[in-house]
Amino acid sequence: MDNIEEGDYVEVITDKGTFKGVLLPKPKFSKDEIVIIKLENGYNVGLIPKEVRLIKKKDKKIKAEKAVKLEYSPDIPTISIIGTGGTIASYIDYSTGAVHPALTAEDFLFTMPEISDEANIQSEILFNTLSENMKPEMWIKLARAVKKAAEKSDGIVIPHGTDTMSYTASALSFMFEKLSVPVVLVGSQRSSDRPSSDAYINLHSSVRVAKTDIGEVVVVMHAGSSDDKCYIHRGTRVRKMHTSRRDAFHSVNSKPLGEIALDGNIKFFKEYKKTDESTELRDKMDERVALLYYYPGMPIEIFEGVLEKMHGAIIMGTGLGHVSSEFVNSVKGMVKDGKIIGMTSQCIYGSVNMNVYSTGRELKYAGVIELGDMLPEVAYVKLMWLLGNYNFEEAKNMLKKNIRGEMEDRRFLL
Amino acid sequence: MDNIEEGDYVEVITDKGTFKGVLLPKPKFSKDEIVIIKLENGYNVGLIPKEVRLIKKKDKKIKAEKAVKLEYSPDIPTISIIGTGGTIASYIDYSTGAVHPALTAEDFLFTMPEISDEANIQSEILFNTLSENMKPEMWIKLARAVKKAAEKSDGIVIPHGTDTMSYTASALSFMFEKLSVPVVLVGSQRSSDRPSSDAYINLHSSVRVAKTDIGEVVVVMHAGSSDDKCYIHRGTRVRKMHTSRRDAFHSVNSKPLGEIALDGNIKFFKEYKKTDESTELRDKMDERVALLYYYPGMPIEIFEGVLEKMHGAIIMGTGLGHVSSEFVNSVKGMVKDGKIIGMTSQCIYGSVNMNVYSTGRELKYAGVIELGDMLPEVAYVKLMWLLGNYNFEEAKNMLKKNIRGEMEDRRFLL
Repeated sequence: MDNIEEGDYVEVITDKGTFKGVLLPKPKFSKDEIVIIKLENGYNVGLIPKEVRLIKKKDKKIKAEKAVKLEYSPDIPTISIIGTGGTIASYIDYSTGAVHPALTAEDFLFTMPEISDEANIQSEILFNTLSENMKPEMWIKLARAVKKAAEKSDGIVIPHGTDTMSYTASALSFMFEKLSVPVVLVGSQRSSDRPSSDAYINLHSSVRVAKTDIGEVVVVMHAGSSDDKCYIHRGTRVRKMHTSRRDAFHSVNSKPLGEIALDGNIKFFKEYKKTDESTELRDKMDERVALLYYYPGMPIEIFEGVLEKMHGAIIMGTGLGHVSSEFVNSVKGMVKDGKIIGMTSQCIYGSVNMNVYSTGRELKYAGVIELGDMLPEVAYVKLMWLLGNYNFEEAKNMLKKNIRGEMEDRRFLL
Repeated sequence: MDNIEEGDYVEVITDKGTFKGVLLPKPKFSKDEIVIIKLENGYNVGLIPKEVRLIKKKDKKIKAEKAVKLEYSPDIPTISIIGTGGTIASYIDYSTGAVHPALTAEDFLFTMPEISDEANIQSEILFNTLSENMKPEMWIKLARAVKKAAEKSDGIVIPHGTDTMSYTASALSFMFEKLSVPVVLVGSQRSSDRPSSDAYINLHSSVRVAKTDIGEVVVVMHAGSSDDKCYIHRGTRVRKMHTSRRDAFHSVNSKPLGEIALDGNIKFFKEYKKTDESTELRDKMDERVALLYYYPGMPIEIFEGVLEKMHGAIIMGTGLGHVSSEFVNSVKGMVKDGKIIGMTSQCIYGSVNMNVYSTGRELKYAGVIELGDMLPEVAYVKLMWLLGNYNFEEAKNMLKKNIRGEMEDRRFLL
């Protein structure tokens, strides 16, 4: 492999057959002789090679020249793009197969020149991170950047990695008590070098949604397996429900807010909050909140250990909202000590209802707050936000109230 | 409320209106003046009463007389029913609204007399527990009871609470390396006193499935919102995906094994293992395995604290199988210390693929085992079983292999 470099097009001969593709960088901790290549179908594979042969050296001159005019037109709205990283906010370096962050205004228009008829594009790159690395402190930075951008534009688009996009959408939803412009998160499940990429339609649709009067934080993503529309999901109801499908994002226990067709036509399925005169931000987050997935066999020591230093926790219980009844006394003690404990369900779909079975009733009377059809991840973010911005009693009361469309099914919560 | 007892039919006057229903027992930790009643639609509600009025005393003579003949017929198969508790294994005491365990052979035939033409029913009550209280040691007891029952019957039906039925189904699937009879878990989402109960059709179908030649552990539950069929799910692919719907159980990333219509007609969608000559059981479980749900903001101390005393863990990562890249070094150390760490996705649907992004590649080369489309809960049970019955190297190798139909999509695992 002496004269072979990252980015070269190679043939890898293995016990399991021969594979062709672009040689990618070796991961840090690779102890064995593994090589990783990007196949022509866009997938990366790790292979144990018997031999690696060079087929074609990488083309170092492949980067196209960019010649994009950024002319301001007073007749069309101005959209701010705040880059955070992820597949959507990147272009593929065809010479190495590697993914780079992009989306300066120039990059954006270079990818999608027709957008310049629809909007003036401003942009900044706030982060360049894979979204599994997002943290509450980054949600806060992002919210502040949104507030600033809202002052000088008519709508905001936030390209974001899909892994934790719904957590970020929730965080922004709670942090903005009022919004003077739409805030649209958008991602893509397949990078733009793949024929099946959803990057283009998602981005284009997100800019158009950012031009509406929606005064909420929404997520715009592919609606189905065809390429004809995107859904507009409310930020507090959406969840990534598939690892790789383009229509991975679902509004759980709810219809999406609406859909946007390829021609830009928007159909709304629900009422939404209209944009306000001003933007109001409460941006504190109490990081001492845990999200805890219960399972049969969970030792009470783990339950107590995780909660020990926390001010609160959201449990993903079984079924209608249960954990082992052996935890009830421990829960009771924690609530007495001033921790806020909320219950959601690992079923994902449906509502918790802690009145049906004895364990639910006992947990409820031990002080666990039942959270209806609120998604576990949304409840986690909400509790961090509540404990960051309100006193204990207010936080407790607001947790079980619907404040941003995060809880619709209140049948069981008399 | 002096002359009012549990089980009486009452009227509760509250600030929010007046409610009628059967008075239920007060939960242990109720500090306030809350009363719980079972409404006529079958839901229990907790109310803060201004007044409680007696409408009708409970009828103490309501228990019907049972007169069921248990005649053995040599012409029909013998089915063993092993009761574990849960909604399905119970009858409602109409006088109190409380749920009691039942399903002696007599109770069963009393509920469903026509079954005596189809099978001889034997039964035992092994546990009487709500399934959130199931533990690995109970899975082992249940497996041993199944082995014993397999010697004297042609099929086994296990009524089980729905909350953790899929965990138990997985445990039995792994523990039985061979089965001489079908093992069918069955539950119900709505108790038999409700007009919409699924108890009857699920139970009847489960007995019929227990008469087939399926040599696997399966779950039989309502197939859709209508009442015309049940699905037969493979024990290692099924998950409870809704808190309350009757068709809550789904075969995730897979078709069900088959479906059974009301007339008993079975249509198979997939190949299945046929019953064997004998039943072979490996029934050890290593309880030092954790299931860990990652979320942005999870402190590394929680991650390390949960895994500290464990021999292994299954992570529910984001997207294609990620956690914060800040965890990579810690993971590497744990793997060096001899812990087995497997990766699944919190998306629930789809496969993990740790070759696509840098975090995935780094985690993989730090020693994390990627588990394709295996469900997180199934992987958790599988790792407990592997560490209980095999040595470290065997366990590591078998974790990533498909041994009971638990991993079908191996596209990404070259």
